[in-house]
Formats: sequence, structure tokens, C-alpha cells
Amino acid sequence: MSAAKIVTAAVIVIGNEILSGRTKDLNLGYIATGLTGIGIRLTEGRFIPDVEAVIVANVNELRARHDYVFTTGGIGPTHDDITAASVAKAFNVPLILHPVAARLLTDHYGPENLTEARMRMAHTPEGATLIDNPVSIAPGFRIGNVFVLAGVPRICQAMFDGLKGSLAGGDPVLSRTVSGYIGEGVIARDLGLLQDRHPALEIGSYPFFRQGKFGASFVIRGIDKAEIDAAAVELHTIIRHLGAEPIDGEPAM
Amino acid sequence: MSAAKIVTAAVIVIGNEILSGRTKDLNLGYIATGLTGIGIRLTEGRFIPDVEAVIVANVNELRARHDYVFTTGGIGPTHDDITAASVAKAFNVPLILHPVAARLLTDHYGPENLTEARMRMAHTPEGATLIDNPVSIAPGFRIGNVFVLAGVPRICQAMFDGLKGSLAGGDPVLSRTVSGYIGEGVIARDLGLLQDRHPALEIGSYPFFRQGKFGASFVIRGIDKAEIDAAAVELHTIIRHLGAEPIDGEPAM
Repeated sequence: MSAAKIVTAAVIVIGNEILSGRTKDLNLGYIATGLTGIGIRLTEGRFIPDVEAVIVANVNELRARHDYVFTTGGIGPTHDDITAASVAKAFNVPLILHPVAARLLTDHYGPENLTEARMRMAHTPEGATLIDNPVSIAPGFRIGNVFVLAGVPRICQAMFDGLKGSLAGGDPVLSRTVSGYIGEGVIARDLGLLQDRHPALEIGSYPFFRQGKFGASFVIRGIDKAEIDAAAVELHTIIRHLGAEPIDGEPAM
Repeated sequence: MSAAKIVTAAVIVIGNEILSGRTKDLNLGYIATGLTGIGIRLTEGRFIPDVEAVIVANVNELRARHDYVFTTGGIGPTHDDITAASVAKAFNVPLILHPVAARLLTDHYGPENLTEARMRMAHTPEGATLIDNPVSIAPGFRIGNVFVLAGVPRICQAMFDGLKGSLAGGDPVLSRTVSGYIGEGVIARDLGLLQDRHPALEIGSYPFFRQGKFGASFVIRGIDKAEIDAAAVELHTIIRHLGAEPIDGEPAM
């Protein structure tokens, strides 16, 4: 088998309101699930405030070591929306009025309602391409390997869904889940030995409490379907030997 | 007025299951809200995988620049629970069997059910003190300024609630929210000028869509109550001048 093609990504959630707890982030998990589905591994997430120097440092650190970086938040019309200007600074290019974005906003608001503040949303770093916003028109943008998305979850998620098809994934990470009403502390030793027998796989154990009983779901992830299936068969046997019934997937709620 | 006493914190969410999107994180937002309430500013969050070198690097980077660091996840009994060992490595101390934790687990499971795997949960870095787990007994721990909490939200949150009283907060960040059914793009200019007049405050603008209408909530944060109140009065005037009705707090759903 040839070496796996690994494609990685990072998400940067930008916003004081997230760090103060006022707003709960819903975007990282959404992007995570979407990336996993197309063979891109989210290996790092950052939550940072609306501070230019911090945004610049994080964008530059993460774009250097990942195939893709996604930012969320800070691209609206108000003074606290500084993501576009900060990303321009990170790339050391000027922030310019993007002609297509300007036309989109002019058509949407009408020239009489197109305040200077709204025109802020038509500014991108020089060289950026637009990301479609089917919800509220004001676009996101891509520059280099950095994708700048809105913070409002409905808009962020629509932007991500729209651009997802343009991303080049690696070998998809496949997974199988086997569950059982069995204590993690009971199965842990055999589970560790199973992991040792399959170093190319990643076996995770996630406890749950359902129908009044404790149990755990075991997620086997990797890129070789045959090896995942073989490990799942072994896991069934382990669970049975310990006196429980293996369940394919998650147990019923 | 003397200089504000600023106390900062970081949260590190540890777990492959969060980065794959399988599990949605609920802990960062919970800790964020709790810290804000006691005058501690969460200024940074990290989401990282269950990889020892990554945990060590992040713990050491963040504990050096924050008053408090909270980690969540990776302290269960299975092979993928490597947080305790990784934090020990970050502090360059051995991982030891903590006698109090060992007694707690022995009392809870009974000696006959205390598997070697469960005994993993009684190991802490040398010098750590325990963090109470009222849900499922196996404790978290504190070493230096690093608090190591469980990943399961109910357990993480109970641990955090229990230890919160022991944290030394700074000057509390006070906030007032004023809302209006007004477009961000309409108020943005005046809002920016308001921010310019009150550089000691932090004024955030968060759009919403309720009762079929667009509007925004404006959050004024700072440590000087009189200045916050003065800015709120100005904001009421601004909203009225623009033809909308100011609403104290969030609008009704």
C-alpha cells in the first residue's frame, strides 16, 4: 500500500463574545464534521479575541503548517469587525474594495442604503476571491489557503457548504463504531491490546449513560477498510467475552 | 483610579472526537461564562488531539502566559486517555499513584472491581492536588496553575463549579446590553464613534433575527460601571435618533 495522503486543516474562531461565554460557538463542530466527510483532518482549533496582532499571528502560524485554514467571525460592518483587515496584514497585502463584492452589496441594499459601514463588507485583501453568502449577500473570501467565513452560524455554515466542493481531500478517514453496555474500566485492558495490534488505526473510547445504564462507544478510525473491519470483528469478540452484547454503531437512545 | 487587575485564563480542549466532529464541545463555553462571572478573562482557547507532544507543548506555552489554564478530556481509564501523563511530562515530574485518589476509587469500585485500567485514573503528576468529581468519583487534579478536568460535560462542569470558588479573580468585567431592531450597517458609524469616545470600554455588536425582523444587540463591557452606564445612555440616544426603540438587554424571543 502506498503512503496515505494526509490533508490537514485548522479552524480559528474569532470573537470576544465567544471567549466571554455570551455566545456559544457552533461553527467549529460543523466544519469539523464537514471536513471529516471529505477526507480532510481538522487537527487544530483556536479561539481568539478580536485583536489584530493576535489574529495576524494565529493566521500566519496556522497557514504555514496546514493545507487549509478556516476563520469564522469578524467580517460584519461594525468597528469590532477587523478580520478582513487583519488577514490582509497577515498576508502583507493592502485591503482593497473588491469590485464584485461592491456590486453585490450595491444591488442588495440599493445605492441609497449602502452606508460606508456596509461598504466595509466589500473590502478584502488584494488577491482574494469571494466566498458566496446565500443568506445575507455580504461575501466571505479566500486568500491563499485561508478561508474567511462569517460568525453567525447560519451564514458560516452556508458559506462552508458552498465552498466545500472546491477543497481537495486526502485519503478519507473511514470509521466504524461498536458499542456495548460495558464499563470502560472493564474493557480498557483488552481495548489497549487491540490498539497495540493495530497501530495504523486509531481506537477511541467514549463513555455514555443511556437507558439507565453505563456503556461506551468504541470508534475505530483509519484509511484501510479491511483492517478496520478486522478490528471490529475482534472488538465484537472482546465485548462478548466480557459478558456484554456488541452493538454496531451507537446504541438506541 | 488605580490600574485594573487583569487575570487571564486559557482553555485547552483535548480530544480527537471533538476534532473529527463526532462530539460537539460544550465545555469551553461553560467555563467561559463561569470565568467571566468571577472576573477572570478567558483570552484563548485551543482544541487539540490526543497526542502527547502536542499536549505538552500547548500546556507549557499557555501556562507560561496565563494565570490559569483549564484542560478538558483524556483522563479516563482507556489507552487513549493520556492527559495526566502528558501534563506530568509538561511539568517534568513523574506520574505517580495518588494515595487519596486510589482510596476514593477503591471505596467506589470495591477492591474486586478495581481493574488496573481504573487505577490509571488514580494517577496524577507528582505534587498535584485533587479536584473533586461529584458525578463519577474519579478525580481531576491541579498542578501549578493548570487544572485538569474530565471531558464528559456533566463531569467537567461539576468539577469546574466545585473548584471555581478557589480561583482568585481580577476586577470583574461588567457589562450592559442594549438592543434595537436596527441594521448593523445603519448604526455602525455612530457605534464606532461611541467606541472612540470610550476607549476603556469594549463595545461589541451582535446581529440577530427575531420576530421576523433583523436587529442587533450591543454589549458594552468594562470595569468602570459609571462609564458603562454613561455609554449606555448615549447608545439609547443614538438608537432613537436612527428611528428605533432602544431595548435594555436582549429583545424578547
